[in-house]
Amino acid sequence: MNVDIQEERSKVSFNIDEFTNWYHGGFENVKKKRFIESYFLNDPELQDKVPTSYLSHKEVYEDSIRKSTIVLRKLKTLQDEGICGPELNSEILGGTYQKYIMREGCPISVHYDMFIPALRNLGTPQQQAEWIPRAINCSIIGAYAQTEMGHGTFVRGLETTATYDPQTKEFIVHSPTITAYKFWPGGLGQTANYAIVFANLYTLGKSYGIHGFLIQLRDEVTHKPLKGITIGEIGAKLGFNSVNNGFLGFDNVRIPLKNMMMKYSEVLENGEYKKSKSAVLTYGTMTYIRVAIVNDGTSLLANAATIAMRYSTVRRQSPIDSNSPEPRIIDHVTQQMKIFPIIAKVIVFKKVAEQLWDNYVQVTQELEKENLDGLASLHAISCCLKAVCTNETTQAVQTLRLACGGHGFLVSAGFSDIFKFVTAAQTYEGENTVLLLQTARYLIKSWSQALKGETLPASVAYLAKYVNGSQPKQWNGSLESILAAFEAATAGKLALAFKHLQQRMKNHSLEEATNLTGNELTKVAEMHCYLYLLQSALTSFKTAIKSASPALGQVLNDVLELYFTDTTIHSLGLLLQFNNITSDDIEALEIRLDECLGKLRNNAIGLVDGFDIPDTVLQSTLGAYDGNVYTRILDAAKKSPLNQEDVNKSFHMYLKPFIKSNL
Amino acid sequence: MNVDIQEERSKVSFNIDEFTNWYHGGFENVKKKRFIESYFLNDPELQDKVPTSYLSHKEVYEDSIRKSTIVLRKLKTLQDEGICGPELNSEILGGTYQKYIMREGCPISVHYDMFIPALRNLGTPQQQAEWIPRAINCSIIGAYAQTEMGHGTFVRGLETTATYDPQTKEFIVHSPTITAYKFWPGGLGQTANYAIVFANLYTLGKSYGIHGFLIQLRDEVTHKPLKGITIGEIGAKLGFNSVNNGFLGFDNVRIPLKNMMMKYSEVLENGEYKKSKSAVLTYGTMTYIRVAIVNDGTSLLANAATIAMRYSTVRRQSPIDSNSPEPRIIDHVTQQMKIFPIIAKVIVFKKVAEQLWDNYVQVTQELEKENLDGLASLHAISCCLKAVCTNETTQAVQTLRLACGGHGFLVSAGFSDIFKFVTAAQTYEGENTVLLLQTARYLIKSWSQALKGETLPASVAYLAKYVNGSQPKQWNGSLESILAAFEAATAGKLALAFKHLQQRMKNHSLEEATNLTGNELTKVAEMHCYLYLLQSALTSFKTAIKSASPALGQVLNDVLELYFTDTTIHSLGLLLQFNNITSDDIEALEIRLDECLGKLRNNAIGLVDGFDIPDTVLQSTLGAYDGNVYTRILDAAKKSPLNQEDVNKSFHMYLKPFIKSNL
Repeated sequence: MNVDIQEERSKVSFNIDEFTNWYHGGFENVKKKRFIESYFLNDPELQDKVPTSYLSHKEVYEDSIRKSTIVLRKLKTLQDEGICGPELNSEILGGTYQKYIMREGCPISVHYDMFIPALRNLGTPQQQAEWIPRAINCSIIGAYAQTEMGHGTFVRGLETTATYDPQTKEFIVHSPTITAYKFWPGGLGQTANYAIVFANLYTLGKSYGIHGFLIQLRDEVTHKPLKGITIGEIGAKLGFNSVNNGFLGFDNVRIPLKNMMMKYSEVLENGEYKKSKSAVLTYGTMTYIRVAIVNDGTSLLANAATIAMRYSTVRRQSPIDSNSPEPRIIDHVTQQMKIFPIIAKVIVFKKVAEQLWDNYVQVTQELEKENLDGLASLHAISCCLKAVCTNETTQAVQTLRLACGGHGFLVSAGFSDIFKFVTAAQTYEGENTVLLLQTARYLIKSWSQALKGETLPASVAYLAKYVNGSQPKQWNGSLESILAAFEAATAGKLALAFKHLQQRMKNHSLEEATNLTGNELTKVAEMHCYLYLLQSALTSFKTAIKSASPALGQVLNDVLELYFTDTTIHSLGLLLQFNNITSDDIEALEIRLDECLGKLRNNAIGLVDGFDIPDTVLQSTLGAYDGNVYTRILDAAKKSPLNQEDVNKSFHMYLKPFIKSNL
Repeated sequence: MNVDIQEERSKVSFNIDEFTNWYHGGFENVKKKRFIESYFLNDPELQDKVPTSYLSHKEVYEDSIRKSTIVLRKLKTLQDEGICGPELNSEILGGTYQKYIMREGCPISVHYDMFIPALRNLGTPQQQAEWIPRAINCSIIGAYAQTEMGHGTFVRGLETTATYDPQTKEFIVHSPTITAYKFWPGGLGQTANYAIVFANLYTLGKSYGIHGFLIQLRDEVTHKPLKGITIGEIGAKLGFNSVNNGFLGFDNVRIPLKNMMMKYSEVLENGEYKKSKSAVLTYGTMTYIRVAIVNDGTSLLANAATIAMRYSTVRRQSPIDSNSPEPRIIDHVTQQMKIFPIIAKVIVFKKVAEQLWDNYVQVTQELEKENLDGLASLHAISCCLKAVCTNETTQAVQTLRLACGGHGFLVSAGFSDIFKFVTAAQTYEGENTVLLLQTARYLIKSWSQALKGETLPASVAYLAKYVNGSQPKQWNGSLESILAAFEAATAGKLALAFKHLQQRMKNHSLEEATNLTGNELTKVAEMHCYLYLLQSALTSFKTAIKSASPALGQVLNDVLELYFTDTTIHSLGLLLQFNNITSDDIEALEIRLDECLGKLRNNAIGLVDGFDIPDTVLQSTLGAYDGNVYTRILDAAKKSPLNQEDVNKSFHMYLKPFIKSNL
């Protein structure tokens, strides 16, 4: 154990286990988490002899298939022994764990995460009975083929067609253009043999919009692509290189009538189209995915924060006082400013996601009673939360990497793998700007309801206070006062956007006016999100503090205050526009922020230790628990294939002949 | 040619060649640039059959050595034909061009960029005569070994020792600890056979601090590491994977006395130490490197902006009006907000770097006359400019990638290569926070001079206006008024930091108080930098507009206004703290920003075309001049080695056996 990190730990004032149990939502969760980590990540077959970063693109994919089958076998063992059910498949292969096993992602995660759920959600009972068992035992490995080269966000723009032929009782699936090629679906390139394909349904000469079809792509025995199918992977990406994202073109491929997913609408043998019921539940599913993304991102950010914090207690650099030895870099307050607010953010995001999850469960139960009340509000929050949290998480991972200087740039530090995962989430499952505009649409609607004096749902009830241009509360710097300032700023910004929208509608359509007001609207949605984060954090922390030991309660108080102060200073421009906050108030805020850092100075290491992330998850030379950074860095370097030989062949092949020719 | 991009170009209101010539500082520069691009980048031997992203780590290195020798041969041909001198070696292999030839960097760039200059700067005439010719013809390939595992920023902390032994007239070079291992020097791993090594000099029992030594590392014929040398590469990194950054440990390696670099100090045969003169010129060199970094980063950002802008005119997605066809995504104003301010930033950074360069040349000429007046001021500006520009550039590249949605995540889009290069610059050649604190130190000193009524250098002369707490000018929204607001905010923020520093000095040493005020100080330095950027842009654009055609003049005006408005809104919190800007003023500013976007709507494509970046430099499926995005994406995908066979072996090796065992 490194002596500096040991000494650092001796100063922690609270019980780390108590924090861990609260942070992870109870000891049962911690126990399960530790079991999974140990069962999968300690398996030598799943540990890399040669790290992924040294392999070729093709080798990375092949190795991920090898690992996937090992994981599947291990999961089967657990099920055979009755230790868990098949739900763990998706949890391990779809969630964050696969990322620790396969640093470039898992090519069969979509099979469990999207393909099997789609069979369940879109298939009739007969279809489910026919296909789901085969999917569960993997004779069918499926992809979820929606996005095309020309269309992602705007699903109605998809171009693939499925035209019903009543003569043969088949659909003819076709890609009329190159932009109609399916592009991006995970596992589609070389892994899947089937896919749920979304296409424009045509029958009896009429178009009925986008529907799902189960289509076989490859022979079940030889795995060769079937006739009319052009298929492959989409090539190198910033990350997720073993997810095997694919492209897929159809040349008049015929599939049987029964392969249309018919739960919500059907085509009869004679070609007649029948719609049964609309799929309002998909809103619920999207919300679920967004909460999961925030949660996953937070786990990854916790890893990054742990690495940076531990490294900062071990690394000594640049004397503060020229007569003293070099301090741990965490003693530089600029370093504290980079790391502590992010530690606070991790805890806040985790708890807010937990609350949103409870909210989701509640709304879903109401949905089943056909009560849609909470849905729009929940959807609006989940949209902006996914956008803001993934943006902030990506930025934070960058900040933490940079806080580790040169060594942070090493793949062995662990940041580059984390970065790839978190930045991808800024784009997938709803591009962030599009999501913010969806939240804004809800806010604009709410504002117009507020102006009419209608009752508003809880999440936007605060707007009612500001419809008459009422003044914000007097600023006194308390957490409640910060919340009030965010309310006033969000409402004020919303009122302005609404005004500009109205003005533009004199010369433009509503849609065009909305586009012209787009930049204001995204800011309003962000502010609404910050308000939600602050409110939700306040509720969750206050509850926790009540039942926590005094020592932990004090730390949670410090974390909460840091989060509030930091968030306030980052939104200062917008807050000042709508609140009376004086220059002296701002000066006081900045001093308070520095004080907040000081309060966490001795406990920050305890908080990251309390995230309870084992070395097998971190896989970081800078962040291991024992703090032995430098030997780890050198050991990792020695694993490079270039270091396995004294002289690389390029010397003899290129350098030597060049030098000779030069003499 | 894609019809959308063609139509887009037809609306451009100014002469693109006129812009190109101004942007690149004259037609001669454009001609030279085009010659270099065509001579090197059109050479089929330097084009990838299999893109770098598909190769293994080792293959990437080997291929970079192959390419390096081809480039060297081509350079030699130019010299033999008298077309250019040897200065082009460093320009091609050290600057941005190598990045377009070797997407993971060049292992011999340090040889030209740092090793040969170090021989020149640190060697006596005899040493230069002995070694430089051998370095030029590459019998010596050198690294520059300063940074150690334990020390980067704080050079005085280096641990490697060089102890003089008067008996044998040798130095004994040794790494006393693992943290003393040299770590990070480019080309050190497998490429170089010599290095300039920096070590603590000991002679006659006394330490004399850090000095440079030329040390042979590998046999000149066999290339095998010499006795006592532990050497290798440091392993996979976020980028620069063929730069061959290395580690190096010494086990009592003996080198002759004459291998100490003796231009500024020498050790005599009897062990006596003699210091000749101090190396004040190194400040100049660091400034030079920082200006070069801003310049390089700007070129890379120009590439990213070109890619995003062209893609946004070709990509159609999400109808604004439900009755109209899908628009080009650049018609969404939120998309304009992502791209146009960055185009403006590229032009501003380019012109500011140009001005700083002129300033550098001037100060250097004065230095030769032993006039040090401008040096501190120039150093202060170059520090904050490197920090702010590399931070902003990295953020901007991210924004542009995200603006291209899913396809931006493809390596073939071009952003990931650009990102790796620009983000590395946030750390190397002065970590950004450390640099900002250096600028802040200069500002604090200037403030205390201002308080004493002393005359200040031009770059900080504005501070004098605020020493008596005088009020900022009335805001009227003009560019001059924006400048005045930035002056007031910078001076105000500096005054506060100074006050807090003084307060803290009652209980702390100056150094400790400076550390405690670190967060305020970095903000002050950033504000000072924004002020410099705004001032410098104003000067440079106003001059250009005077001599430009009216059409180009108008566009430059629009660009300048966008840059000012955007920068103002991003610093609003700080500006409001020290200026009387009302809520109505802010509303007007935001509307003006949207108007600025509208003014550039038709000319943005012309500006990026005017950056004059050929497809061979962009190497982007999304950004090629002809706008044929989708066929390029698919063609690039088809190059993946995974797509060269119908069925990947992992199916037979892993998947099939697993499925069978499952049935």
